[in-house]
Amino acid sequence: MTDSATPPYDGRHLLADFHGCTVRLDDAALVERALREAVAAAGATILDLNLHHFGKGQGVTGVALLAESHMSIHTWPEHGYAALDLFLCGHRHDIDAALRALADAFEPTEVRKQTIARGYGVAPLAE
Amino acid sequence: MTDSATPPYDGRHLLADFHGCTVRLDDAALVERALREAVAAAGATILDLNLHHFGKGQGVTGVALLAESHMSIHTWPEHGYAALDLFLCGHRHDIDAALRALADAFEPTEVRKQTIARGYGVAPLAE
Repeated sequence: MTDSATPPYDGRHLLADFHGCTVRLDDAALVERALREAVAAAGATILDLNLHHFGKGQGVTGVALLAESHMSIHTWPEHGYAALDLFLCGHRHDIDAALRALADAFEPTEVRKQTIARGYGVAPLAE
Repeated sequence: MTDSATPPYDGRHLLADFHGCTVRLDDAALVERALREAVAAAGATILDLNLHHFGKGQGVTGVALLAESHMSIHTWPEHGYAALDLFLCGHRHDIDAALRALADAFEPTEVRKQTIARGYGVAPLAE
């Protein structure tokens, strides 16, 4: 949002699916720490951070509200799976470093990802 | 997250870009109300909802943390543009009704969207 005065808006929305995570997906404190580390690695700014733990051994959902949009994580420990979103405006932020911080935290055996350009100054979404 | 015991996981992540919105994108109360109406229209459950208003006449960013993942909105009133995400697990939720509720609130002249399947039981992301 801080780049709103600088057309064209160059939002990047990185969707990442982590598979094969055998540790930590049910650890709310770790999820919060990983989100904070990812935001710091990107050089972005947290406005608010909220988590919910669905219970012992179960998933965690967390969203960091950023000055540059948001990062979110939803985990399914029973499937070793986590769905992550890193949505940042402006190319001065290091979205790849943020993803690396999250991968370091959850140690997936496979990372599948897709980056989508979004905003008023970019090619439109597909449909 | 409530569907985690029912493989295959059928998460749907709807990315929607609203263009040509001439009203309300700087109205934090309206953004909150629209998010709540969208969640209700989907039949989903709010765990937490957080908003940030960047200042008078400026953008609003908001995220609803859901039992079924999340919905988010980021607005750029000066460009009539809003970026929305509706990420829901389970096909019992009406994601199209949620999108209609948001379009009713912000009256875009153009809606561009893309739906991406996510989860441990679906085809992987593109890259």
